[in-house]
Amino acid sequence: MATINDNYLKLKAGYLFPEIARRVNAFAQANPEAKIIRLGIGDVTEPLPQACRDAMIQAVEEMGDRSTFKGYGPEQGYAWLREKIAAQDFQARGCNITAEEIFISDGSKCDCGNILDIFGDNNTIAVTDPVYPVYVDTNVMAGHTGEANEAGEYAGLVYLPINAENNFTATIPDTKVDLIYLCFPNNPTGAVATKEHLQAWVDYARKHQSIIFFDAAYESYITDPSIPHSIYEIEGAKECAIEFRSFSKNAGFTGTRCALTVFPKNLTAKAADGSDVELWKLWNRRQSTKFNGVSYIVQRGAEAVYSSEGQTQIKRLISFYLENAQIIREKLTTAGLDVYGGVNAPYVWVKTPAGLSSWDFFDKLLQVCHVVGTPGSGFGACGEGYFRISAFNSRENVEEAMKRITENFQV
Amino acid sequence: MATINDNYLKLKAGYLFPEIARRVNAFAQANPEAKIIRLGIGDVTEPLPQACRDAMIQAVEEMGDRSTFKGYGPEQGYAWLREKIAAQDFQARGCNITAEEIFISDGSKCDCGNILDIFGDNNTIAVTDPVYPVYVDTNVMAGHTGEANEAGEYAGLVYLPINAENNFTATIPDTKVDLIYLCFPNNPTGAVATKEHLQAWVDYARKHQSIIFFDAAYESYITDPSIPHSIYEIEGAKECAIEFRSFSKNAGFTGTRCALTVFPKNLTAKAADGSDVELWKLWNRRQSTKFNGVSYIVQRGAEAVYSSEGQTQIKRLISFYLENAQIIREKLTTAGLDVYGGVNAPYVWVKTPAGLSSWDFFDKLLQVCHVVGTPGSGFGACGEGYFRISAFNSRENVEEAMKRITENFQV
Repeated sequence: MATINDNYLKLKAGYLFPEIARRVNAFAQANPEAKIIRLGIGDVTEPLPQACRDAMIQAVEEMGDRSTFKGYGPEQGYAWLREKIAAQDFQARGCNITAEEIFISDGSKCDCGNILDIFGDNNTIAVTDPVYPVYVDTNVMAGHTGEANEAGEYAGLVYLPINAENNFTATIPDTKVDLIYLCFPNNPTGAVATKEHLQAWVDYARKHQSIIFFDAAYESYITDPSIPHSIYEIEGAKECAIEFRSFSKNAGFTGTRCALTVFPKNLTAKAADGSDVELWKLWNRRQSTKFNGVSYIVQRGAEAVYSSEGQTQIKRLISFYLENAQIIREKLTTAGLDVYGGVNAPYVWVKTPAGLSSWDFFDKLLQVCHVVGTPGSGFGACGEGYFRISAFNSRENVEEAMKRITENFQV
Repeated sequence: MATINDNYLKLKAGYLFPEIARRVNAFAQANPEAKIIRLGIGDVTEPLPQACRDAMIQAVEEMGDRSTFKGYGPEQGYAWLREKIAAQDFQARGCNITAEEIFISDGSKCDCGNILDIFGDNNTIAVTDPVYPVYVDTNVMAGHTGEANEAGEYAGLVYLPINAENNFTATIPDTKVDLIYLCFPNNPTGAVATKEHLQAWVDYARKHQSIIFFDAAYESYITDPSIPHSIYEIEGAKECAIEFRSFSKNAGFTGTRCALTVFPKNLTAKAADGSDVELWKLWNRRQSTKFNGVSYIVQRGAEAVYSSEGQTQIKRLISFYLENAQIIREKLTTAGLDVYGGVNAPYVWVKTPAGLSSWDFFDKLLQVCHVVGTPGSGFGACGEGYFRISAFNSRENVEEAMKRITENFQV
């Protein structure tokens, strides 16, 4: 008699974005004439950079000739891609990260979830609140939590509230936690962390022999030169941190699929017998056994991001979305709403007006303005009363959405 | 103090194929003049079908226009691909499988490993011996086994020997097992299962409420019309089986990456409270949370497999590799070796001559003939004394490899 993983039954409702999709689809079916503008899920809308497309077309053509055909690639990713990442994303910023320490994958969502495979089940785990739901749900699935309470908080997890009072950067706990998820620039709040704040986290992690999972998916949106792009800009981070990055938001790869995760060599955690085991080795074994590498074609597309044309093109994309964010900030502020983020990140974090709950504001925005955002409470109990608006859309749609909102929500 | 998943420390040596790569690289470095022919890892060598390349180039071009750009796709895969698979791979063979029951992924290796996420840790697990190592290693990683003995057998797993006596199809156990991995056409032995054999497994699974993981990655190589391509050709299989398929071996997608897994609706396993939980729902939750779908470009390439040009082109590819297998069978038989498989599968399973161990034969073949195969013992204790030769290579290389072997191993 086969049994299931009962931990799945602890998961609350649907994963946030499928639930949003369900409500939007229901509204669209009932109101076929409504021109819905989606500023909800953080999905890019602008064309893939020419350099990436040219590289992928060439790669497809190589697949048509026996002499240049590519079968299974290295599970870790091709060296030519890893070397460019190491040089341009890390070494150029003074981070001593080598190609060997970089693992190419088909998505940060996968890596953020799969990372738990190599860790023990007895770790104390800290997440911010609000937080990207994948961090929490994958811990629930792995049996690292108890049941959820009415606010959606799972027993056994350590929640670190982030709010306007602490600039949306969590206060470092005075108790010991073993695994810490940090995301800067932050999803969903758009907040960034200073060098001092990250140094305090690194110092904490080294003191407690904790591991920081640092999600830098939005690093390319940083405009403030004093803000670190990588955790490895912080002294001692190679002894305590794993970093996730993605091509989704800088080069528009959400539908093309490529990401990377950095495992510094010599970064260790404890085996049951007290010995130190290198995490790089465990992840390498995991990926070799449960993954077969990213499509050759896609890796060539990602490599093109590092050409001079590619760099120019992605910078243009990022500027475009940041201008959208600026428009959203300005219009909502003019409408009397309290807004955060959107300066070093493609997300604007809004206080819902008139004490509306996050989902009530979601429904109202959908029904009145035909605009889709993301309820803050979907990111955690402390997100209640907030709302995320994404800057990923065409200029026309962003302006139209802001027009509809300012006309209907003048506070 | 962060801890690791100690189960990883139980894993023996490297995963088989990295170990082969290590020995081949060492030999190549020491013998730079040697022209090594690789018939080891089951990796295709012939160009990707024109239909797939044309579709992918068009998809890349769509990515360059805002109106046809694709961001995040459905985690389950695009409906247009799932519908074609349902119609042509399943319904056309009388299997009542719908598009909704099909999940597109980036590889069968991933799915075969990740599948354990949704099952309990208390299941009794059966694998054949020899077997595709991923089935075993992922169970070790998940903590479903004890330590390995000297023969490489892990405590707690039920090994079902497959050998010449049982036509390389395991004898159905008289004890109860909960999860059963079956692979037909078989990797590594090249054996196939008759309808009667699969019916006996399905009957067993229904009686014991077990789940069969049916790996059909090589179904397109079946030439005997009496052999089922899908487990769902067997009555009752929708109540007890999950099927894995791949575009790697039929369309040459090993470097392009696309696969699929079938979860029949209403297929259930037991929760701890004794209730029946639909596995489709659990897998859907897993994939929505830990996966972001396959590249749009790659899915368009896979869709082209189902066009009439695509079908003609993949049939030509399969015939080509099967002709290679036929040449390997003939030449090795002429050389006095005992050979199995290679008729409905791209693998020929060879008894090592003169009582050589599998790795000794591997080293000898590499050193004397500069030919790489796969040691049978790498697939399990019962594979000792056997050797796998893959038909995936150019005609010229296959013929040259057979020439070298027949000249050196005349028994």
